[in-house]
This record gives sequence, structure tokens and C-alpha cells, in this order.
Amino acid sequence: MKSSELLNIVLTVILIFVLVRYNVNGTTDEISQTTVVNSTAVMDSLHTKKSVGKRPFLFPMPVGIIGSYDSVGTPNIMAASWIGIVNSKPMSIGVSLRPSTKTYNNVMRTQAFTVNIANEKLVEYVDWVGHYSGKDIDKFDVLPLTPVRSKLVNAPYVHEFPVVLECRVVRSTELGKHTHFVGEIMDVKVDTAILKKNQKFVDINKLRPIMMGNGSGYFGIGENLGRGGKVYQRLGINPLIESK
Amino acid sequence: MKSSELLNIVLTVILIFVLVRYNVNGTTDEISQTTVVNSTAVMDSLHTKKSVGKRPFLFPMPVGIIGSYDSVGTPNIMAASWIGIVNSKPMSIGVSLRPSTKTYNNVMRTQAFTVNIANEKLVEYVDWVGHYSGKDIDKFDVLPLTPVRSKLVNAPYVHEFPVVLECRVVRSTELGKHTHFVGEIMDVKVDTAILKKNQKFVDINKLRPIMMGNGSGYFGIGENLGRGGKVYQRLGINPLIESK
Repeated sequence: MKSSELLNIVLTVILIFVLVRYNVNGTTDEISQTTVVNSTAVMDSLHTKKSVGKRPFLFPMPVGIIGSYDSVGTPNIMAASWIGIVNSKPMSIGVSLRPSTKTYNNVMRTQAFTVNIANEKLVEYVDWVGHYSGKDIDKFDVLPLTPVRSKLVNAPYVHEFPVVLECRVVRSTELGKHTHFVGEIMDVKVDTAILKKNQKFVDINKLRPIMMGNGSGYFGIGENLGRGGKVYQRLGINPLIESK
Repeated sequence: MKSSELLNIVLTVILIFVLVRYNVNGTTDEISQTTVVNSTAVMDSLHTKKSVGKRPFLFPMPVGIIGSYDSVGTPNIMAASWIGIVNSKPMSIGVSLRPSTKTYNNVMRTQAFTVNIANEKLVEYVDWVGHYSGKDIDKFDVLPLTPVRSKLVNAPYVHEFPVVLECRVVRSTELGKHTHFVGEIMDVKVDTAILKKNQKFVDINKLRPIMMGNGSGYFGIGENLGRGGKVYQRLGINPLIESK
């Protein structure tokens, strides 16, 4: 009886082992299914999208006003949409500039710039700054905007803009028509009026930022669709993930 | 009389010359004013903004779903907000990835990826894709999303997403915690349902893209604030610019 009990245990262990293996094979089967989806026949029937060419403007982009000093200390600003965070340690932002701009020459020399974030009320100024070149006019001379010398980097920021990032260039890479500058963010400064009650975080309904989208249109921020790390729970898809 | 008329003309010409010079000097004076604004006393009184530290989330950012294949051809997707156009010739997009992600390893191997742009209806999927790692599960196996093999690059795009960019890596640069991949955009494909009547351009009200803003919130697109190159005209500030 004791030996048959032992046999039972051994058989149970073998059965469990086989079941676990089957599960592992299940995963392999699922990969095979994925491969089936990728087979030529299915793929071709799914190629229903239309090519619109190499257009970049099909997703919302931030708009930044780039502040810099020229060789005699004249502050300049330009509008740039081809900007974005590129690294978290050190926290850095990428800004792409054409060599023909005044800002490119300024930043090459000073190795510093600011990124000024507009609100909806400033949209005309953003567009104005994007329309005229600092090579032709002193923009601060014409606009009711005030340059403030950053204490952290050799660049001016714009007093009237609610959010400013002060950056020092850590890398510049010629990519083609544009050169990509990576700026380490030395600090972010905001108007206290846009802070939440806790005075720590920005209230986006007070900031009212703008973005570019769909060609060259400016848009305000829309409906709050929920928090990252929360919204996914609505799906109710909770895969079992092995603990590591 | 004739000689006094001549004198009048000469005096007028001199007067005009002086006035023109005065205008030119006016510009110089205005630059001096700018310099005054930059003087330490004025600057310090303008340092009214509050430092909130090196926070990157203070402006709206696009959200892209990055598609890639692993070494056995399993398609994977991840969510990325640190993306943005970096060059216009060739048209290229930058995507920053941490080496610990499955996508980083995939893209390093295949030198290709897609960027899939979501609409508001897909926000739960975007968040889900951002919450789970392809190292733990086959995401296409769990989600009702369909990978389609790109005909142009060695990467899958997502059938259910309305806009896809097909990219081949032309450069990758280690910046710190993140590596910055520059992908040349080989083509952009869209669902015909989001096109305007002319079938050429995307109707943003049909696309309804989403963005990240203010920490980790998802937002829809808001009010159309006007077209670039038009909005500035509302200011009525028209500087005289010398023709070149």
C-alpha cells in the first residue's frame, strides 16, 4: 500500500509536470497563431490603409518658443514644433533647428537655449514669432514680450510665458536639413498662477497649453480622458504574469 | 528764385536723409532698450517664476505605439511619449527607448519600427500597452489588436490604429537612461475613414487624436485656435522689413 501511494504521488507529479509543459507549449501555440496572422494571405487583406506620403503632421505636437542670445547679447525667439523629451537621466529635451535660422547660430555659439511654453492667450504671439526671422528684426523690440536672463544658462526666457525650461546643450547632431540639439534641462520654472493649490503641480486647466496638429493648425487641450496607469483597467484584461 | 528752389530741394533731400538715418538709429535705440531690460536690476525683479524641478510633463506630448519584431518574428508594441519629428529631409522621427525594454532590443536588431497613432476610442489600449511589458506577455495574443507586416520596413503596424508611420533606423545615440533612435519615415498610412472629402488630408475631427499632458493624463484635442501663418495677423503688428 505504501509503495502504491508513492506511485500515486510520482504519477501526480508527472501529471503536473506535463500540464505545466502543456501550458508552456500553449504559449508557443499562441506565438504560432500570431505567425498565422502575419502570413501573406491575411496580411494582404489587412493592407487597407491609404498612403499619404511622408507627412509628419498627423499627430499632435508641442509648440515651444526657443530663446537664445546672439554674439552681442541680443535676445531672440523662434517657434519650434519639432521638439520633445529625449532622455530621463539627465532629463533632456531635443530641439531640431535649420542652420539657416538665427537661433541655430546663437545656440551653436552659446550652447544654451530656453523652451517657453505658451497658453491659449499667447497663440498669436507664437504664430508671429514663427512668421518672422530674427535675422530681419529684433522680435523683442516689436512685441510686448520681455526677455529675462536665465541665472542657470546663457539664454533668455520670456517673462510672459507660463512655463520655461532652461537648457544647456550636451550634443548636436546634423541629421540632414535639420540639426538635432539635445539640451539638458537644468530647471523648469512656472508662473505660480498656474499651480494647483498644493503649489507643487501645474493645473492644466489654468495653464491651457496649445499644440500643433493636422498640418499647421493650433489647438487647445481637450477632454481629460483619464490617468495613465488607470485607464487600462477599464478594459478588464488582466493577464496572468509570472512573478520574477 | 531757381537757385532757392534748388536749395529747397537739396534741404528736403537732406531732411529725408536725416529722418531715414533717425529711423535706423531708432532701431539701435530700441536694441539699447532691450539691453536695459536685460540689466541686472530689471532682470531680478522679473524673476517671479517658481522652480518646479526638472519635470518634463508640462507641455502636451504625442503618444505613439511603437511596433517591432523580436528575433523569432513575434510582434510587440509599447507606448512612447518621448517621440517627435527631428528632421525634414529626410523626414525623420526620434523615439527614445530604455535598453531594458523588449522594444529596444527588437529595434536594435531589426533597425526598424512603426509609430501607431491612437484616437480617443483606443486610449484604454494605449494605456494597457504602456502598463505591460512584452518581456512578460505577447500583447497581440491578449488584446483584440492585429499586427500587420509592413511592406516597407521589418516591423509590424497595428491594423486598428488610424495612422501609422513606417520607419527605418538611421541612427541611435545613447544619451543616458534613454537611447535616442532616429527613424526615417518611409511612408505614412491612414485609414480612409479619417480623410477629408478630397481624400488627401486628414480630418482631425475624424481622427480625434490623443496626447499626454500634465503628468500622466491623457487628453483629447481641444478647440481649433486657428491656422499657422494666419493667427499672427490678428495682432496687427507689421514690422517693416528691408527687402534683401
